[in-house]
Amino acid sequence: MAPCLSFFLLFLFAFSAIPANSLPTFFPGAAYQSLIKQAKISKPKLPFKTHYFPQTLDHFTFQPKSSKLFYQKYLINSDYWRKGAPIFVYTGNEGNIEWFAANTGFMLDIAPKFKALLVFIEHRFYGKSMPFGKDSYQSAKTLGYLNSQQALADFAVLITSLKQNLSSEASPVVVFGGSYGGSKFKINPEIDGSFIFTIAKEKGLFLPVLAAWFRLKYPHIAIGALASSAPILQFDKLIPWSSFYDAVSQDFKDVSLNCYQVIKGSWAELEAMSTQKQALAELSKTFRTCKSLHSTASARDWLWTAFVYTAMVNYPTKADFMKPLPAYPVQKMCKIIDKFPSEATKLSRAFAAASLYYNYSRSENCFKIEHELDGHGLHGWDWQTCTEMVMPMTCSKESMFPPSGFDYEEFAEQCQMKYGVSPRPHWITTEFGGERIQKVLKRFGSNIIFSNGMQDPWSRGGVLKNISSSIIALVTEKGAHHVDFRSATKKDPKWLIQLRKQEVEIIQKWLNEYYADL
Amino acid sequence: MAPCLSFFLLFLFAFSAIPANSLPTFFPGAAYQSLIKQAKISKPKLPFKTHYFPQTLDHFTFQPKSSKLFYQKYLINSDYWRKGAPIFVYTGNEGNIEWFAANTGFMLDIAPKFKALLVFIEHRFYGKSMPFGKDSYQSAKTLGYLNSQQALADFAVLITSLKQNLSSEASPVVVFGGSYGGSKFKINPEIDGSFIFTIAKEKGLFLPVLAAWFRLKYPHIAIGALASSAPILQFDKLIPWSSFYDAVSQDFKDVSLNCYQVIKGSWAELEAMSTQKQALAELSKTFRTCKSLHSTASARDWLWTAFVYTAMVNYPTKADFMKPLPAYPVQKMCKIIDKFPSEATKLSRAFAAASLYYNYSRSENCFKIEHELDGHGLHGWDWQTCTEMVMPMTCSKESMFPPSGFDYEEFAEQCQMKYGVSPRPHWITTEFGGERIQKVLKRFGSNIIFSNGMQDPWSRGGVLKNISSSIIALVTEKGAHHVDFRSATKKDPKWLIQLRKQEVEIIQKWLNEYYADL
Repeated sequence: MAPCLSFFLLFLFAFSAIPANSLPTFFPGAAYQSLIKQAKISKPKLPFKTHYFPQTLDHFTFQPKSSKLFYQKYLINSDYWRKGAPIFVYTGNEGNIEWFAANTGFMLDIAPKFKALLVFIEHRFYGKSMPFGKDSYQSAKTLGYLNSQQALADFAVLITSLKQNLSSEASPVVVFGGSYGGSKFKINPEIDGSFIFTIAKEKGLFLPVLAAWFRLKYPHIAIGALASSAPILQFDKLIPWSSFYDAVSQDFKDVSLNCYQVIKGSWAELEAMSTQKQALAELSKTFRTCKSLHSTASARDWLWTAFVYTAMVNYPTKADFMKPLPAYPVQKMCKIIDKFPSEATKLSRAFAAASLYYNYSRSENCFKIEHELDGHGLHGWDWQTCTEMVMPMTCSKESMFPPSGFDYEEFAEQCQMKYGVSPRPHWITTEFGGERIQKVLKRFGSNIIFSNGMQDPWSRGGVLKNISSSIIALVTEKGAHHVDFRSATKKDPKWLIQLRKQEVEIIQKWLNEYYADL
Repeated sequence: MAPCLSFFLLFLFAFSAIPANSLPTFFPGAAYQSLIKQAKISKPKLPFKTHYFPQTLDHFTFQPKSSKLFYQKYLINSDYWRKGAPIFVYTGNEGNIEWFAANTGFMLDIAPKFKALLVFIEHRFYGKSMPFGKDSYQSAKTLGYLNSQQALADFAVLITSLKQNLSSEASPVVVFGGSYGGSKFKINPEIDGSFIFTIAKEKGLFLPVLAAWFRLKYPHIAIGALASSAPILQFDKLIPWSSFYDAVSQDFKDVSLNCYQVIKGSWAELEAMSTQKQALAELSKTFRTCKSLHSTASARDWLWTAFVYTAMVNYPTKADFMKPLPAYPVQKMCKIIDKFPSEATKLSRAFAAASLYYNYSRSENCFKIEHELDGHGLHGWDWQTCTEMVMPMTCSKESMFPPSGFDYEEFAEQCQMKYGVSPRPHWITTEFGGERIQKVLKRFGSNIIFSNGMQDPWSRGGVLKNISSSIIALVTEKGAHHVDFRSATKKDPKWLIQLRKQEVEIIQKWLNEYYADL
């Protein structure tokens, strides 16, 4: 078995070219039919103006070439703002900034109360903010400038300049951080005429750490940070390497022990098939693929993706973050598994559950599980994991995934082959800390909210206990990946309403202090 | 008149090749004779072992070439250390690390009390820590890696690695920061057999800011910082641009109004000479130069240097930091000026005073005021001022220097011509802050001592008021440039003994807290 992280990356790569929209109705009976009725996707509101900022390519090496600029995209909403009022900045990350703006309705919801200017800054090397245009991902020579320190400096420079241009230097800035990982999305306006964001090319991990790091490194620019689902301890040896997949497994186990056991048992059935004659033909049939499968690994990765991302977005209301999904999709998946006839194989049940993830909107007739890999194979997040974002992950015997270890040497070798670079596995903890974080930040730093929902597997790498009176951990048992950042809906449960209320109160406190200091 | 900073840099450049040790006895009579008796220079103790660390050249751009390593020099004294006890790190700066070690006897003095390991890390591109060997200063291509962020990351990586190698990860680290500016020194063991550090090639400004910045950016690595004479507000528009030279002038004025007026008046006499026939010949005679002068500017710069550096090192005891000097050398200089016959010209009096600086050790027969400029003209600090360390300085009408402004455009043009780079005048304040520092750090950060002596002109860019209960300003009226870092002597005044005692007590408090947290 390949190491878990490599495996995870591998399946992401394999999957990287799968377009969204695939899969017919494989759920058993009425349960699925009732679910499908809820799948009406609302049109995301994007009341932003687009701007481009001439950004320095290399903040930390002063060479003649470092004067090279690129155009960094950012979005602005000034509907509620007045000069001197706060500026709320979303520190963009692994994707098209519109996608984050559409999935961070919380900031729009609270802007009127604070009379806040909203700014969404796109992360370099994602979306339209490509320093070398179409050649940005061409090689290590260009990709070298894609890393978190350069990104944080981008934010610092852009925010400082923006405030000057607005003649509003005294405006306090609060940063909001959502995901940080490797997903690249495109807008697909074709599905029932609405503005739906669908996965286009790449997918990866999700690390909403930049806002927290920004507050720690640039406290003179941001008076506080709300870092939602930020696994700042996911690096090096700060937490057990099995935490992530253990947490995914726990989500399913908590809903139904049977569901967990079925998924856990499905891998062996899949593996057994790979030794059978005609296995791929049978598997293609079971998985209703558009074209015959060439390897069982594709099916494994396809299932894996569905379970991991569904755990991450196990929201209490229907949503369309990764893909359109109903409320509490893990429950729905387990419902599908549990309701299946007992004579059905575990693999077919796992497949039926996974199909909820891929085709809840019912637009697919068959699944394009395999796809030709991108010839370059040079995607943003993959590069980041091969340089600074080394997050070893393993699957324990208790997880519902096949047990596996992490072989750093093998991983490093792959990076060397792929990009000619060696990872720096200890760099993030050297640059941003993490060891003894409770003790270090107890006596240093302030004004950070770490919000985590325990449904989100990334929560295990998050800060789950208050560190000081102003470095606060807000933990919700039922929350998933930055659920608090989503637009409020009428169906939001009380705990979510309460969570957002707490966040608003804490931000208000920071602002009160700031204005009192003035 | 050239802008003051340019002027200052210019004279430093012009002066850059003047060897130390120049000048006969030009002081009037007995005063000088009595001074000279005190000029016995003690041999600095350097009880350190030298090591070299394989350091990453580029921490912030991940390119295949970034895997290039260079050997960074560091010194260690483990005479008093036991495992788990504190590690005191001197964050080296603009010169040979031995020079700083020899001038930071304070750390050696307090090591036994704390059972501390002492580590002096050399700054990249200075001393022996040359990433490209002899070619390090060759062009912007190599010099690009010389900047403060890379230097701070060097410290972080080296300290982390060192603790691991010592199996003493739990040892608390305190950083000590002395000067940061452009001086490059060599050891000259020839003068009366003792180990005297004399200026060899370059000189520049003095900015002991790295320790404070290190605590702010790497709080997980250093539990506290003692930043002595750190002008972290010397950038951008944080303080009036005339502060530095006003402070130098104030030092002289405080000793003697006449002394201040004589120096202030001497520039006009020098300028008048430049229009006279035979001016340079006369000036060469007055200034007792070894060779005939080619420009009056050299004489001006030579005087300027003497007054500025003497103010900086206006220590209460004799010392040999920049050059061998008696106790309170500003007083001594003014004594020379004030005792001069009243018919003497201001210029000759200014010259006599300046000669104290250049030849207190009485080893010079004539002055080598002009020297051929280095063909490359690529010196470390000059590069740093042309990139990030932009510190505009002007001379006000109240200063004892000729009034002058600062023309940024002209400065930037020179940098472009010289290196092909454009300065980033706002980068340091963007990266490290400075605006509203009292308010920002009141609510962020901890465990920094900013010590400043008001005799030191750099103090005007320092933090002179307590910011919080743990960001402390220790200000002494009679202190000069990091006087607290010098070895204790029997002649130390009470205020200096008290200052060091306070520093020790505060560091002890940090350590107590740290061990209590464990």
